[in-house]
Amino acid sequence: MEMATDAYKPRAVVLLSGGLDSTTVAADVRARGFDVYAMSFDYGQRHRFGREAAARVAAWVGAVRHEVVEIDLRAFGGSALTDDIDVPKGDALDAGEGIPVTYVPARNTVFLSFALAWAEVLGSKDIFLGVNALDYSGYPDCRPEFIRAYERMARLATKAGVEGDDELTIHAPLIDLTKAEIISLGLRHGVDYGMTTSCYDPAGDGRPCGRCDSCRLRLRGFEQAGAADPLRYQQEASR
Amino acid sequence: MEMATDAYKPRAVVLLSGGLDSTTVAADVRARGFDVYAMSFDYGQRHRFGREAAARVAAWVGAVRHEVVEIDLRAFGGSALTDDIDVPKGDALDAGEGIPVTYVPARNTVFLSFALAWAEVLGSKDIFLGVNALDYSGYPDCRPEFIRAYERMARLATKAGVEGDDELTIHAPLIDLTKAEIISLGLRHGVDYGMTTSCYDPAGDGRPCGRCDSCRLRLRGFEQAGAADPLRYQQEASR
Repeated sequence: MEMATDAYKPRAVVLLSGGLDSTTVAADVRARGFDVYAMSFDYGQRHRFGREAAARVAAWVGAVRHEVVEIDLRAFGGSALTDDIDVPKGDALDAGEGIPVTYVPARNTVFLSFALAWAEVLGSKDIFLGVNALDYSGYPDCRPEFIRAYERMARLATKAGVEGDDELTIHAPLIDLTKAEIISLGLRHGVDYGMTTSCYDPAGDGRPCGRCDSCRLRLRGFEQAGAADPLRYQQEASR
Repeated sequence: MEMATDAYKPRAVVLLSGGLDSTTVAADVRARGFDVYAMSFDYGQRHRFGREAAARVAAWVGAVRHEVVEIDLRAFGGSALTDDIDVPKGDALDAGEGIPVTYVPARNTVFLSFALAWAEVLGSKDIFLGVNALDYSGYPDCRPEFIRAYERMARLATKAGVEGDDELTIHAPLIDLTKAEIISLGLRHGVDYGMTTSCYDPAGDGRPCGRCDSCRLRLRGFEQAGAADPLRYQQEASR
């Protein structure tokens, strides 16, 4: 008997936070015919819901492995997501104005570096992440020029680079999409966004606040996509 | 009263393994007039002596802080330094031939990414590491073109990059030096190489084996520098 040749799938490393964007990417990667190797990070976030969401999404998408890397970014300080700084709420959603207080220093650089290490071990040539230049234009490491420079560096960093095999690609399929377009893409792939979490400051039972920047970008995205967000919010007044 | 203006020193992040190369770099950074912020990594190495050496060197060089970042590269496998693969001994010292089995996937990429995060928080524009292209030409991430590509990426990854301030520099001052030249540089800066450790496979009391590639490169370097290695080896026959 011969093995069916269509049983072979290339491997992709997917950075998975359990949020709306990375969940959409994971569904998209599966739809492109890759085996999904999901990688999440436990970096001293103030709540555990992201990690739980990532596990749900990894199971749903049929990830071959889901690796959770523990790293301690708190040692370096400097962000509302890991420090005791108040999360900003209720300000205008002007994503283009400066760098958000929730910025974690060099976060995508650190995350991609672990993904690169894993890709090299797996023999994977494809790393996917859900960065988005429109909604997060204040983040230096969400810009297309950063992704391209990272890819160029990564092709020189590994054995494949030495051997002249420079096919490694850093994919950022959402980078030019609006939040509404991202949601529409995920819905076409059958994503149940009830699995995901986006809130910077959820209640003790995990319900999102509906007021932080991340909740508001999400809610506006669903509204513009003409779809309903399946999450139950603490309060919906400020939508 | 005025503050003495020469009390101000720029901050440098220095990757410090406690080995011969990074110790020489730390001494050189101090001599260049920087405050040293030393960063080491605990990544599942098979012995603790590197970490102890890094602590000794950080104290000797007067580091303002010495940060030890715990990361678990073992999850990704693939290297003799972290797996149960035998360390190669006694083969010809042909550094140019292929990639050593002791290569850790994307190691310098991961280490530099943590250094970059710390540099951003510290407001430091200078990251130093002791990579060397001559003795370790088999390592993809020890090549000058990798360092330059990393620097270019790093200038785009951080707030300073967004703000058009692209002065960040990744310094690899040893990259073109022979081991003998590195040792001579360190001796001029007063380094006591008895603080350092280089062996891949030391005895339980920390004495180096004298036979692994790292020991032999070190011993040959001291010989060519016309200096004595202050370390006491398990056996010296294979020098």
